[in-house]
Amino acid sequence: MSIDKVRLTRAYLSRVAEPPAPALAAFVDEVGPVKAAELVRAGRVPEAVEGQTSARRGEDRAEQDLRRMAELGGRLVVPEDDEWPEWPFNALTLAAANGLKCGLAPLALWVRGKANVAELAERAVAVVGSRDASGYGQHIATEFGYGLAEKGIVVVSGAAYGIDGCAHRGALAAEGSTIAVLACGVDVPYPAGHANLIARIPERGLVVSEYPPAHTPARHRFLTRNRLIAALGDGTVVVEAGRRSGAKNTAASTTALGRVLMAVPGPVTSASSTGCHELLRSGQAIAVSTVAEVVESTGRIGADLVESTRQSSTAIGPPNGDAVRVHEALGLTTGHSAEVIAVESGVALSTVRALLPEFEMAGLAERVDTGWKRSHVTAGCGDA
Amino acid sequence: MSIDKVRLTRAYLSRVAEPPAPALAAFVDEVGPVKAAELVRAGRVPEAVEGQTSARRGEDRAEQDLRRMAELGGRLVVPEDDEWPEWPFNALTLAAANGLKCGLAPLALWVRGKANVAELAERAVAVVGSRDASGYGQHIATEFGYGLAEKGIVVVSGAAYGIDGCAHRGALAAEGSTIAVLACGVDVPYPAGHANLIARIPERGLVVSEYPPAHTPARHRFLTRNRLIAALGDGTVVVEAGRRSGAKNTAASTTALGRVLMAVPGPVTSASSTGCHELLRSGQAIAVSTVAEVVESTGRIGADLVESTRQSSTAIGPPNGDAVRVHEALGLTTGHSAEVIAVESGVALSTVRALLPEFEMAGLAERVDTGWKRSHVTAGCGDA
Repeated sequence: MSIDKVRLTRAYLSRVAEPPAPALAAFVDEVGPVKAAELVRAGRVPEAVEGQTSARRGEDRAEQDLRRMAELGGRLVVPEDDEWPEWPFNALTLAAANGLKCGLAPLALWVRGKANVAELAERAVAVVGSRDASGYGQHIATEFGYGLAEKGIVVVSGAAYGIDGCAHRGALAAEGSTIAVLACGVDVPYPAGHANLIARIPERGLVVSEYPPAHTPARHRFLTRNRLIAALGDGTVVVEAGRRSGAKNTAASTTALGRVLMAVPGPVTSASSTGCHELLRSGQAIAVSTVAEVVESTGRIGADLVESTRQSSTAIGPPNGDAVRVHEALGLTTGHSAEVIAVESGVALSTVRALLPEFEMAGLAERVDTGWKRSHVTAGCGDA
Repeated sequence: MSIDKVRLTRAYLSRVAEPPAPALAAFVDEVGPVKAAELVRAGRVPEAVEGQTSARRGEDRAEQDLRRMAELGGRLVVPEDDEWPEWPFNALTLAAANGLKCGLAPLALWVRGKANVAELAERAVAVVGSRDASGYGQHIATEFGYGLAEKGIVVVSGAAYGIDGCAHRGALAAEGSTIAVLACGVDVPYPAGHANLIARIPERGLVVSEYPPAHTPARHRFLTRNRLIAALGDGTVVVEAGRRSGAKNTAASTTALGRVLMAVPGPVTSASSTGCHELLRSGQAIAVSTVAEVVESTGRIGADLVESTRQSSTAIGPPNGDAVRVHEALGLTTGHSAEVIAVESGVALSTVRALLPEFEMAGLAERVDTGWKRSHVTAGCGDA
């Protein structure tokens, strides 16, 4: 099967169902994308898939979409590509398998920008927050965007007004890379006031979306999109969030995916920081005041140690024994960070990161203040 | 033994050694205050006590001190008095027994103000922070002082410039009670700029100190004093603290005593909030943005429920079975608050609060996000 054929097929599939479409995703996994597309077109699919695809199955604009992308200097990245961010999206698949709403990897990713998606996602942090940001929040988002980019960390955000825009701009100002994940087609400059920003990002980074070209934004698409922002970062920093900010949705996805959630404190007299303080107070988020603390919290300090392991394992996929080794490396009484577990088990950090939430769902591990530990049930007391 | 004789003796003892004097405290516990004072005066004491008392053992100004206090409308409160804050100070004794530096109850408490010490300490929260407070910190300290007092909660602080002063003033503005714990004699108006404030506090609250009249403040006395601030509150709120603020010392005492430590977030651009953010980031403190959150964090919501139990138990002291009942009421897998444990065990909240840190030291209980639980060792897995 040629990659071009697969790409054309996935371009069709990416338009045929509104993400997230779990039944279609499962069907594609089961029979492969090409066969799945054939059967969807023919309407010969299981009922659940039919429900998700019947409305748009005749809408085959894959060739035009790919041509339009090429004109814009863009492309469609598919799971069969080397640059597919396999490990970042793995957590989504696992989360979906565990019934989490925020789960499910995209069927394909529409991309503008020359950078390799997987490479950019290797060392990335999401920086998100309110559109209606205060001067304080805008200042911090810009500083964090700049500071992270200066350290070679890619800034992932949603290109919205307020915090998102400041984070992207900060990264660009430091001549760093940034990824904007849109809730519409990557050829749709939304919000309009950020058309220039969105046009600039592909020069040094990526504008990505699971929505096909010309797709317009919609309320539910922002929520659906947020899981990709959370998945592409090693962690998420909420700079400012009001009580009802959409950033809290990204925060929830971050936690559900087993990523590090961070929140920036602010004046308690500011409604723009209420959401951040709620996340801190509930213990969901770690407080971060500086870029150095973000780096420390996302555990990138020991990253170089496990870099070589990660590379080889990414290439060949995890051997069967990985899960056992990772589980054995879990602390019995105190939690270990994913980095420590990776070093101790010799299993790639990305694999460790993907396995930990799976263990959690299975009741084999739990998150504590200091990282991950075995659940007591499995710590030798199960039969006591 | 008449209470007057005991009081005179403890007045002598409170001047004879520089607190904290663990050897002297243990000696007083062993032989009683009157006998201890006799032996100290005669120099017939164990070597450790001799080291703590030899320098000042001839300095007997007990009668003058008590007279001076009476002139000021003050008094010396001793452990033999009904108004001795037995349970708040119990945690200090336990901490000392466990080798914690911040431990050790005072030998006596010099007091100005008509209120009953034990009654005021029944429902109190410490509000502390930097002397060099920002406008933001001063605003919050005043608001918290006012808001807590409005809810009938006594505000404990150190009468220093900055946060302390604002907290006291806020409480007074709400016509509530406040306790100022000084690092000098209660007749010494320190800091000088707070002479009026310190003179006003006894009208509605208390100015207290373990240092005898005319004792001047000294650097180490502030640190020694801080443990009493922590002990007199159900919890401590750090409103603002720089990286090297003395408030961090009070914070450490609070945690060591098993009290709730809270910190107010602030702008990360403000050096005055750095200490608060460190406490939040390390997980030592819970974030509090409002007075309601302080009340919630200190678990006062269910306080009325256990009030009657507390009263009776305070009067008769804990029966031997209390420790067993409290331990049985601990959660096996999830943590319970001290309030819940008190209700479930039928043991007075104060006793529960005093026992929990003791259990922790003995490895019988541990603190988790949600409160206290049994340590795994004792949860049925010990022999597995």
